[in-house]
Amino acid sequence: MNFPNKVKINEVGPRDGLQNEAELVPAAAKIDWINMLSETGASYIEVSSFVHPDWIPQLKDATEVAKKIKRNPDVTYAALVPNNKGLDRALEVNVDEICLFLSASETHNKNNINKTIDQTLPIIENVSSKAKESNKQVRGYVSTVFGCPYEGDIDVEKVISICDRLFTMGVDEISIGDTIGVADPVQVDKVLTKLLKYFPKDKLAMHFHDTRGTALANVLVSLNHGITNFDSAVGGLGGCPYAKGASGNLATDDLLYMLHRMGIETGMNIDKVIESALYIENYVSSLSSHQMKIINSER
Amino acid sequence: MNFPNKVKINEVGPRDGLQNEAELVPAAAKIDWINMLSETGASYIEVSSFVHPDWIPQLKDATEVAKKIKRNPDVTYAALVPNNKGLDRALEVNVDEICLFLSASETHNKNNINKTIDQTLPIIENVSSKAKESNKQVRGYVSTVFGCPYEGDIDVEKVISICDRLFTMGVDEISIGDTIGVADPVQVDKVLTKLLKYFPKDKLAMHFHDTRGTALANVLVSLNHGITNFDSAVGGLGGCPYAKGASGNLATDDLLYMLHRMGIETGMNIDKVIESALYIENYVSSLSSHQMKIINSER
Repeated sequence: MNFPNKVKINEVGPRDGLQNEAELVPAAAKIDWINMLSETGASYIEVSSFVHPDWIPQLKDATEVAKKIKRNPDVTYAALVPNNKGLDRALEVNVDEICLFLSASETHNKNNINKTIDQTLPIIENVSSKAKESNKQVRGYVSTVFGCPYEGDIDVEKVISICDRLFTMGVDEISIGDTIGVADPVQVDKVLTKLLKYFPKDKLAMHFHDTRGTALANVLVSLNHGITNFDSAVGGLGGCPYAKGASGNLATDDLLYMLHRMGIETGMNIDKVIESALYIENYVSSLSSHQMKIINSER
Repeated sequence: MNFPNKVKINEVGPRDGLQNEAELVPAAAKIDWINMLSETGASYIEVSSFVHPDWIPQLKDATEVAKKIKRNPDVTYAALVPNNKGLDRALEVNVDEICLFLSASETHNKNNINKTIDQTLPIIENVSSKAKESNKQVRGYVSTVFGCPYEGDIDVEKVISICDRLFTMGVDEISIGDTIGVADPVQVDKVLTKLLKYFPKDKLAMHFHDTRGTALANVLVSLNHGITNFDSAVGGLGGCPYAKGASGNLATDDLLYMLHRMGIETGMNIDKVIESALYIENYVSSLSSHQMKIINSER
């Protein structure tokens, strides 16, 4: 096996983490927390989501949070945007990067945003082009790539065709999501082998959830394919929307433990990451990261 | 990457799991539980440890448990044995396989059994030879191979020399242990590359703990080396003696989820394994397996 020397980590805790936690975290705490995250060596932080506040009440304070955080010039601050209205709000607070999203599963997309995939694509194409006019980086999220709670297996050809549309509309990078944390290493190997026939490896990020404990094994396979871009959330924030109490996003701290010990650089400080996980733990129910379990057991 | 089609799993929950849990489980519950495990398709179950009851009070009922379980002829029932006295007790109840143990770390061995490695080897050599005379299979455990809580890194040459002694004394198989769950995939790759220069892959089993979340990634690297023999404990029993509340043994149910989805046969039934984990959960504090978290969140 052959691994890269350096990896970029995208901290998605304030967005993908908090949006799946039951608790509403006060804006002031989010701001303090993101300020802590900004000092961990992170180069990318997803601060919130500019969806309609009724959709995700946990992130209804997106504008306030994005406005009041202290910007570290070494960090790209990103936010999720579903449509032009969301884009206007994101541009108003001048986030650095715009994240578009859709699902590789027709049913999941429909249940998530009440539109078919074909109805969704022109909307985000429009957002992408406007974001580009405003000189913003654009990231695309493709979710449920490795399995859907409604449809089960997802055809890789469908994922390829969606990625193709996203890159054609000018998206800079696509995050390939295992939204419900079902992927196994053989599947990741197969999916990446196909995707990398069409798209360059430095344009893809992998987004694993640790619901069934396979996230780091899936990271390993991705590293072996030369992927150097991974999404994660401090403390393993985010649970699983389909099984409350289950593990959520791959924990940034678990990812850092493995990568650093493998001799792979990330630029991030694991102690500071754990500190920021301990901070947000005061506002949500128990976190699922292994590093946190060790720390908490020693307190 | 290249993976085997079939893997053997050694269920160590009743021994390595329970010995690291704070609670004393009643013998009757252990017996019921091991009887459940015997019906999961498991081919190997480590039922207890014949160490002095003062050392590990959790397993002081080894004789009663081994005597009263219902033996499934398809299962090898094994037990840990530290010396001739322990062997006599194990032979009295006619376990199928005798497990010897020592640490690759001098300090850990001393703290664990109050003897140097050089003092330990002749003792277990004697036990091994007597066990063989009684037509028993003999398994050797080498612990703290990937790191020791007292000494830190362990020299692989030390591990090789211990394994060599064990195989020379007639041990049939050696379990290579990451006792405190620190191993990373690059380290596992390096250690296995060296070990497999000296010893055949079908004589080695890998014993990972999931303390830091890396167990399945380490299994993946081992599979890629052709290892087909893994130790695990249902529900992730066993905690971590150095950080109470932290994750313990690699959960058999997590291991099965990954292997089965990768298309690798184990002969075990994951639903029955989870049932047996739910049973023992009534007697110990919360289990750490991801499959259990999903099940418990749905109850």
